Amino acid sequence: MLIVPEREIADLMTRDAAFDAVEGVFAAMAAKDAYNFPVIREAIGHEDALYGFKGGFDKAGMALGLKAGGYWPNNLEKHGLINHQSTVFLFDPDTGKVRAMVGGNLLTALRTAAASSVSIKHLARKDAKVMGMVGAHQATFQLRAALEQRQFEKVIGWNYHPEMLPNIEKIAQEAGLPFEAVPLEGMAEADVVISITSTFAPSIMADHISEGTHIACMGTDTKGKQEVEAALLARSTVFTDEVAQSISIGEAQHAVAQGLIRESDVHQIGAVINGTHKGRTSESEITLFDGTGVGLQDLAVAASVVELAVKKGVAIEVDF
Amino acid sequence: MLIVPEREIADLMTRDAAFDAVEGVFAAMAAKDAYNFPVIREAIGHEDALYGFKGGFDKAGMALGLKAGGYWPNNLEKHGLINHQSTVFLFDPDTGKVRAMVGGNLLTALRTAAASSVSIKHLARKDAKVMGMVGAHQATFQLRAALEQRQFEKVIGWNYHPEMLPNIEKIAQEAGLPFEAVPLEGMAEADVVISITSTFAPSIMADHISEGTHIACMGTDTKGKQEVEAALLARSTVFTDEVAQSISIGEAQHAVAQGLIRESDVHQIGAVINGTHKGRTSESEITLFDGTGVGLQDLAVAASVVELAVKKGVAIEVDF
Repeated sequence: MLIVPEREIADLMTRDAAFDAVEGVFAAMAAKDAYNFPVIREAIGHEDALYGFKGGFDKAGMALGLKAGGYWPNNLEKHGLINHQSTVFLFDPDTGKVRAMVGGNLLTALRTAAASSVSIKHLARKDAKVMGMVGAHQATFQLRAALEQRQFEKVIGWNYHPEMLPNIEKIAQEAGLPFEAVPLEGMAEADVVISITSTFAPSIMADHISEGTHIACMGTDTKGKQEVEAALLARSTVFTDEVAQSISIGEAQHAVAQGLIRESDVHQIGAVINGTHKGRTSESEITLFDGTGVGLQDLAVAASVVELAVKKGVAIEVDF
Repeated sequence: MLIVPEREIADLMTRDAAFDAVEGVFAAMAAKDAYNFPVIREAIGHEDALYGFKGGFDKAGMALGLKAGGYWPNNLEKHGLINHQSTVFLFDPDTGKVRAMVGGNLLTALRTAAASSVSIKHLARKDAKVMGMVGAHQATFQLRAALEQRQFEKVIGWNYHPEMLPNIEKIAQEAGLPFEAVPLEGMAEADVVISITSTFAPSIMADHISEGTHIACMGTDTKGKQEVEAALLARSTVFTDEVAQSISIGEAQHAVAQGLIRESDVHQIGAVINGTHKGRTSESEITLFDGTGVGLQDLAVAASVVELAVKKGVAIEVDF
């Protein structure tokens, strides 16, 4: 079996490879060639940790396995480790033997950034100029990937803690773009918005978003969390990675619960990639992507990085 | 992190170590210091394979993780590999980082044998003389472990395919005990019975078992499977590893469904180990252990074997 340690991932994995892996598996999901298993997520009653497994099988890409790990809120303070810890395990679908173990921390950030980026490619207006960011932590990964999708001319940003906005400004500057901190109302200027915050009350109201905008909501992955006003979903054409998650633990949970939209109003992004859903149909339509995060994304980027590690000769081989 | 490959397990793991690990975790479960996560089990639609995860957290033993793998029915014929394939992954409960990866195939057989053995220690009559085996495949592991628990004088056996009974006879001979093949009615002679078969219709009827017997039913782990007539559970004091599994996918599912016993009639074996349940109370009582198999058993024996591998210097250390 092959091992790719966390420390190798940054040098191996490219945003292009992550994009291709995630776009591919979203397409496979919509074609019913790939499916996610039920998610296990447990508050283990120790260190306030949340731990669990996200597994799946992609028959098209022949990726089987799981991401295991979770959130240890005291890691940084107590151990100097990042609080999110995860590891991806790939199995051979032909035999059930373990095939690879891959550090999952950076991969998780890259696959989540790739997801919003895939949604921009397939749903944003081609002439999008202003990129809006809500959030300033994981948002750096998101922005870097997003800026590759359109000819943006400016980045605007808002964060609950404005003192963190320089994180975002730095990425904009690296891309040679001006940055402007704005109030939430200022997001009306954006052609594309990515929101990636962890909150239980919406920041973005329906009237903060202009006609024709594409917005990717990447922060809601738990019952009760919410980034945008439910009325915004009613104004939008809603897409997601996985419909079942979107309406139960994703951003669409609130709009569905309030009867503003129905499950059938939430579409798989993979169907747009496959051409079985038309995607955006007008310049004035608001498209909203609810990125909930699925195990198959983790398997896809892990399989991709194992391939790169083998090519570069940095995969550790263990006779298991 | 540490790796203990499948090939090392046979030389490392002892029946004693497996027994102690399983007894300890059953006790922790009953004391509510350890709990199993919901089980994921998926027919993946490839190679007729069943694949899934059994996870849990034992706060007493500080074991966190999962067994991943399943059943690949074509392995032997197509690849010369055993059909059951599994791997155990242990995580550090303090940080969420992966701590060890351990081959899970032999460990699964040993932990299952340890479970029936623990039940014999705590529930069988002290003067048990005749050991009865139903099944002849995994039964070899079961019998070896069982014979260490009492001063048995004879082994009797039945199997649907009688030509496999020499498997059992060989283990009896190794222990210096006579072996006799019997019809199912002949099990009435046994003081202890272990049944470990995979079947959807009961072999052992209520009147095949004599008063005072302890019977361990180790083969039922799926809805619909059944080894013994439901009426036998009504005649017995019923114990199990985990009550929720026992009444849903274990041997007790049928007796509960038929209204012969209630959930409250099924007791945790760990409570007997801890002394909070009195266990057997008379020489004539029939005790029945429904061993359904839980993830915590896998974690416990894996943690034990990692310790042994480190002591013997055969654990592979990988800087992950």
